[in-house]
Amino acid sequence: MAEGFRYQQLEAWLLQGIADRRWRQGERLPSIRTLCREQAVSKATVQHALQRLEARGLVEARPKAGYFVAPQPVAVQQPLARARIEAPRPVTASDLLLDIMGRSAAFDLLPDHQGGEIPPGIVALNRSIGRSLRRQSGDDFQYYDQPAGDNGLREQLALHVSRRGWKVDPDQLCVTSGCQHALFLALMACCRRGDVVAVESPGFYGVMQLIEQLDLQIVEVPASSDKGMDIDALEEVLQRWEVTACVVSPAFATPSGAMMPDTAKKRLLDLAEQYDLAVIEDDIYADTAFEAVPDPLKALDADNRVILCSSFSKCLSRDLRLGWVSGARWHARILHLKLVTQLASSRYLQQGVADFMEDGSFAAHLRRQRNQLRERRDRLLALLQAWPEVVRASDPRGGLAVWVELPEHVDTLAIYSDALEQGVVITPGPLFSASGQFRNCLRISFAHPWEKARVGALNRLPALLFGS
Amino acid sequence: MAEGFRYQQLEAWLLQGIADRRWRQGERLPSIRTLCREQAVSKATVQHALQRLEARGLVEARPKAGYFVAPQPVAVQQPLARARIEAPRPVTASDLLLDIMGRSAAFDLLPDHQGGEIPPGIVALNRSIGRSLRRQSGDDFQYYDQPAGDNGLREQLALHVSRRGWKVDPDQLCVTSGCQHALFLALMACCRRGDVVAVESPGFYGVMQLIEQLDLQIVEVPASSDKGMDIDALEEVLQRWEVTACVVSPAFATPSGAMMPDTAKKRLLDLAEQYDLAVIEDDIYADTAFEAVPDPLKALDADNRVILCSSFSKCLSRDLRLGWVSGARWHARILHLKLVTQLASSRYLQQGVADFMEDGSFAAHLRRQRNQLRERRDRLLALLQAWPEVVRASDPRGGLAVWVELPEHVDTLAIYSDALEQGVVITPGPLFSASGQFRNCLRISFAHPWEKARVGALNRLPALLFGS
Repeated sequence: MAEGFRYQQLEAWLLQGIADRRWRQGERLPSIRTLCREQAVSKATVQHALQRLEARGLVEARPKAGYFVAPQPVAVQQPLARARIEAPRPVTASDLLLDIMGRSAAFDLLPDHQGGEIPPGIVALNRSIGRSLRRQSGDDFQYYDQPAGDNGLREQLALHVSRRGWKVDPDQLCVTSGCQHALFLALMACCRRGDVVAVESPGFYGVMQLIEQLDLQIVEVPASSDKGMDIDALEEVLQRWEVTACVVSPAFATPSGAMMPDTAKKRLLDLAEQYDLAVIEDDIYADTAFEAVPDPLKALDADNRVILCSSFSKCLSRDLRLGWVSGARWHARILHLKLVTQLASSRYLQQGVADFMEDGSFAAHLRRQRNQLRERRDRLLALLQAWPEVVRASDPRGGLAVWVELPEHVDTLAIYSDALEQGVVITPGPLFSASGQFRNCLRISFAHPWEKARVGALNRLPALLFGS
Repeated sequence: MAEGFRYQQLEAWLLQGIADRRWRQGERLPSIRTLCREQAVSKATVQHALQRLEARGLVEARPKAGYFVAPQPVAVQQPLARARIEAPRPVTASDLLLDIMGRSAAFDLLPDHQGGEIPPGIVALNRSIGRSLRRQSGDDFQYYDQPAGDNGLREQLALHVSRRGWKVDPDQLCVTSGCQHALFLALMACCRRGDVVAVESPGFYGVMQLIEQLDLQIVEVPASSDKGMDIDALEEVLQRWEVTACVVSPAFATPSGAMMPDTAKKRLLDLAEQYDLAVIEDDIYADTAFEAVPDPLKALDADNRVILCSSFSKCLSRDLRLGWVSGARWHARILHLKLVTQLASSRYLQQGVADFMEDGSFAAHLRRQRNQLRERRDRLLALLQAWPEVVRASDPRGGLAVWVELPEHVDTLAIYSDALEQGVVITPGPLFSASGQFRNCLRISFAHPWEKARVGALNRLPALLFGS
């Protein structure tokens, strides 16, 4: 048998294994040494075969980790479910949503399972906060920080976002207790009771709950996994009803994972000016971008009507409870509301984070995290393709979750309790709609380490969803 | 000269010195050794004279510190200014108040002056938080804490308040970002736009600002420095107008410094039941008590209508940004509002504070702080009595400030800018009234170390207030 024949044989054998799902997308192939031994070929033959598969985009070499089955872009079919446009109405949060949020489970199938190693970025962050606390002196403890937040942190944030084409004066930033708090201040500042707020559908349930608590009304605008909010649909909504504000997440919206194209961003801002809308931009997922971080809508905001809200919760730590808001023409009112409802944020905590940003630790953390998240996305998508029924799934380039569309007959809401009995917490599609749409959809997170317990939970899902 | 004669002579000489203000109230008398030497008498004679003065309540012995001129209850004349009762109305916060709050100056004449040593309690607290951060493991950073707050902290808080006659299940506590945040959640939970809220007058401006932002109406109920809210006046208000909630601070209300008598507490709760009021108890100053910490109103709340709000800001650190609320019949709604507006508080920060409470450091800190605050109160009262015009002042048994009533012709609001030019930030009386009453009153803090710079600022005040 010629050498050429041997590597071709091996290549064909590997291809068959991938097709048979012996090794699934995102999974590691046997090591070179194992292949040499089991297939009785030389190391050079194995390397040649693998390199040919790599050149065809079918496997990926990862330094020090080996060869992995590459995700197949053509294999992912985008979800098709599209929201209906309905008249504005008040929101009533479901008990189910409160249950899920109370379990801190919104991004985890297994919230009680603590696993993985503490990432080096978090270790560095904690050290930085510890140093900041030790620097405290005199009767500093007798003073509240200024309501807008620590100057040093706001300067670091301004520098951080300047790389995304947004030049902001630190005076136009206000530190908050997370993005949800920022969204709350934004909605409270620009809306009055009864006002109508347009949101993406499917969209973030936290915004819907704020709309409920502030006695506002909601109108859902269809959004897709590839382009985000449908701007034609938004225009239709604006023509039909008087809308005060529009909440939108152009960078990897949850749950759709969409990145809004630049042309859509520009049209959105034109409509905002035409209909005198406040635009509330939820930018919380931007820094998870697996490739380039997209510029925010705010960078195009010539008319000073985009309120940008964000936080460190998705890209660094949910336990920091630090976010920020830049309130455009409503900024003074937002600052006042921050002061009146909470006085200030912790100065020492903020200074610890500012140091962590300044010394480059934050940038290093983001780089590591992006690679991790991309890999976990690929593994999740590969696993979904092995499910017994056809599922459609978003293929996000950032964020922490995949939006999964199942066959019409599947009712994810009805399955919630059964899944919980098996120790799995799912996030059913209807949670992402104020009118209970998307019953055959599901958001599945890839935020957590790809561990045996979580893979096991994912593998228990098909039986629950499709019946045995 | 008989021994009896000598101690009588010495007693008379000491009395004359006190009357002449050679030693002012709160100041230390010469040591026993110094008196022996300078008056050429025996140690027994000095001790006898001092003990007789102590028995008359004119001097105080403090362990290991010596004898101090006792504050003279008769010398401090309580303020007399009494609020007018006016019909409920909306609140408009003054720019002046925002200016003062923006300067973090509400409790300091010299907010830019950083002085004093960091107290051992704060050092211990920071260590405890640092240890808690280092305990972080796995992917803990991926999870929000439960909305109600860390179990360990809530257990410690429940234990802490149980010493004050209040048995509370930790499940009935919700951790907040400080007391202002707790008051915000409380008012948001039990009031609807346009509702009338009764407050003490003079009373805390932070509550008035919340009433403004939530589009509620205010009605001011007169309060005195000795008994707090006038319950007869409250009854009159309840008879005349429909009131939804009453905010009251029974333990060392700011600015009056009053401690509400038990009889008044009971009458207040009877009225609350009769008129179906929500009672919001601001308990933030209780732990600063110089003597016994009074029981909260909440301990008497058989009808489950007292919402207790508090925080660590006044008794430990303003930079912690941790408070708590126990919401009685509105607790579920408060929890929901906390979740929706902020998701959670930092778990590791809370666990650091819980450890600090559990190992006794908090109790030790409170003991040290009480002695310090009492001494600073005495010094401030002694200084006020040396002012060229008669001032009336509260003589609080807790809290951080004295409420000062000046002659009728003095306008503290008009003096604010002049004082600011001299580097002194005053807190004029009208800030404590939604209708701008108390123009001849002033709140002066004794929270900070009794240092030369602050005494200098206090000594610049009479010229500003009374003219040269």
